[in-house]
Amino acid sequence: MSTHTEMLESLGLTLPPAPDPVANYLGTKRSGNLLYVSGRKSALVGKVDKHVSEEAAKEAARDTVLLLLAIIKQDLGSLDHIKSIVKLQGFIRSSAKFNRQPQVLDGASEVLIALWGERGKHARTATGTAHLPYGATIQLDMIVELHDT
Amino acid sequence: MSTHTEMLESLGLTLPPAPDPVANYLGTKRSGNLLYVSGRKSALVGKVDKHVSEEAAKEAARDTVLLLLAIIKQDLGSLDHIKSIVKLQGFIRSSAKFNRQPQVLDGASEVLIALWGERGKHARTATGTAHLPYGATIQLDMIVELHDT
Amino acid sequence: MSTHTEMLESLGLTLPPAPDPVANYLGTKRSGNLLYVSGRKSALVGKVDKHVSEEAAKEAARDTVLLLLAIIKQDLGSLDHIKSIVKLQGFIRSSAKFNRQPQVLDGASEVLIALWGERGKHARTATGTAHLPYGATIQLDMIVELHDT
Repeated sequence: MSTHTEMLESLGLTLPPAPDPVANYLGTKRSGNLLYVSGRKSALVGKVDKHVSEEAAKEAARDTVLLLLAIIKQDLGSLDHIKSIVKLQGFIRSSAKFNRQPQVLDGASEVLIALWGERGKHARTATGTAHLPYGATIQLDMIVELHDT
Repeated sequence: MSTHTEMLESLGLTLPPAPDPVANYLGTKRSGNLLYVSGRKSALVGKVDKHVSEEAAKEAARDTVLLLLAIIKQDLGSLDHIKSIVKLQGFIRSSAKFNRQPQVLDGASEVLIALWGERGKHARTATGTAHLPYGATIQLDMIVELHDT
Repeated sequence: MSTHTEMLESLGLTLPPAPDPVANYLGTKRSGNLLYVSGRKSALVGKVDKHVSEEAAKEAARDTVLLLLAIIKQDLGSLDHIKSIVKLQGFIRSSAKFNRQPQVLDGASEVLIALWGERGKHARTATGTAHLPYGATIQLDMIVELHDT
């Protein structure tokens, strides 16, 4: 069992099953030491502050970054290959007046920092939109740096 | 005639003319072996599922990625310099209830995979928005990896 | 005083104070020679063409890229470490019919090109959205290439 799995368990979290590979794109693509992780949506649907609460959206951001980590683990075999978290992009589906997208995205950032400490601290952008695939509340993609191989 | 041009023709596709260079930014910018391609919009305008059909939007995604390839070819001289497609970002202008942005973006992904096979498979994110430059239906940008020179 | 500071002054511009470090993410994150700058919002709030004018939005784009540069300077000690501007992403909060997001983003691009000339020319994407953190008009993030160290 990897250290990261143990750390997740100590936080009361587990990685979800990685979804089946999709037809027309990859879950992750490596270029040099950078791994680009495709955008994934939350299971939670609806606009924050209209259909779902800010707190539920923050939990969904946490769950979505766990999904990204599960996909990385499936593709690389282990999360131990991750050296550093570089950039997190979050789209948060928002009601007309909701404007606390950064607080929602903290749900994802906090997991990454809990797991990788200083190396888990990252650049990020939290953007609002009215439209996400399948009506999801959250969509995240990410760039991570891998150890030399 | 490059292999990629022949492959496009066998698919019944051709590269459009590359647009004139613009004043305040570049069509592509290289850093190391990564080439960042600026966002480009479709000629098709309107929101999917309100003004245009999902099928028309998927064709527009295909045409927009051909525009990105035309710009790369203009800047580099040949598509043969492309080693791999790394990341595709698609914004799809959507009606209030349209939520099949991934199916629309497949129109672009399929071209990249047809041309470069396994190396054409990429990470991607398909996001919805209500607003794009000039009312366009599709906006794409892309990161590709180049062969060593 | 650095050359870049002098050049800014000759343009009638100054870097704003860099904001305090935030809790859950970084202002910038380096990977190799690339520096990823986190998304930052304008002080200006409201939708272009509804609450604020295109001209005011363009000025806000300029001010927001100055904020990104102030954050880079704070993190690196000097803007002299910047070799090249690679990619600029701009989200512009737009009224239902506003579609000149590229003209707004020019406010940011022009500063980068004024400061770094040819090396300041960059790939970019100008996207519209209805929703940004705290109701801001502009949100920018950026990737820059640093000199070898």
